[in-house]
Amino acid sequence: MRIHRLHRYGTAVLTVAFLMPNPLAFLAKADDRTTTDRAAITAVLKSQQTAWNRGDIDAFLVGYWHSPNLTFAGSNGVSRGWENVLARYKQNYPDRAAMGELNFSDLEFRFLGPDAALVLGSWHLKRQKDDVGGVFSLVWQRFPEGWRIIHDHTSAVATPK
Amino acid sequence: MRIHRLHRYGTAVLTVAFLMPNPLAFLAKADDRTTTDRAAITAVLKSQQTAWNRGDIDAFLVGYWHSPNLTFAGSNGVSRGWENVLARYKQNYPDRAAMGELNFSDLEFRFLGPDAALVLGSWHLKRQKDDVGGVFSLVWQRFPEGWRIIHDHTSAVATPK
Repeated sequence: MRIHRLHRYGTAVLTVAFLMPNPLAFLAKADDRTTTDRAAITAVLKSQQTAWNRGDIDAFLVGYWHSPNLTFAGSNGVSRGWENVLARYKQNYPDRAAMGELNFSDLEFRFLGPDAALVLGSWHLKRQKDDVGGVFSLVWQRFPEGWRIIHDHTSAVATPK
Repeated sequence: MRIHRLHRYGTAVLTVAFLMPNPLAFLAKADDRTTTDRAAITAVLKSQQTAWNRGDIDAFLVGYWHSPNLTFAGSNGVSRGWENVLARYKQNYPDRAAMGELNFSDLEFRFLGPDAALVLGSWHLKRQKDDVGGVFSLVWQRFPEGWRIIHDHTSAVATPK
């Protein structure tokens, strides 16, 4: 809903900017930037999903900040560092059967400044032995190489029968 | 460690700024602001802890953004809106025995821009019937009334026996 309102506002500003060029134009630019940034972040998430679904955890990890300061929180506490997060994924998902088919949905964006964003969403793994899923909160930062996840907090959510 | 390095950098900048006033001085100002903001956020968390430990959930909730757009993620999915989060807390913690004694620790700050921060930390509830605890990721935003949590993702972490 918040995003919706932002978009309507953006459209209004764009209209005004077209009719009479004025200082409000910078708002239109900010809105354009948000649209571009949403698309860029969505593209990273889509690449992650595609990588996962071809069994390529290394490529999945490209979406994360390649730094010892990357953090990943969940029911096992906080893991630190890109290498650890990679090792943990490989340990928890040793083969294609364990990886299943990943789907991200319900993406919700909040920009926290020009170079940071919070993205909420749902994840779902369809596997032969079970279906699992839950919610995630991703904090993103813009780097010269693009938007990267600097913090991931993921929870499994029990599916009501 | 990141914070540590930032502080060391901050000290170096302050020394340089003292020896020869130059454009780098603005970095010292940014560092001062970070220190002030950390203190302000820590104060909100301390107030929350104090409120909880006197059984005052309403006062505990003051730390959260008073908005229908407040989000709270965890093993039950995503709750939305300040009123819902309040109702959920009151339902899950109906009395002092359920509330126990709350302690926050391991706070870790990352500023995401001038008006946004990510704070990781651990929570612990000491109760007569059990001890529970886990980790949280809090996204903060600066408002005219001060720093408020706009998103909370909390997980329980099983204590290894």
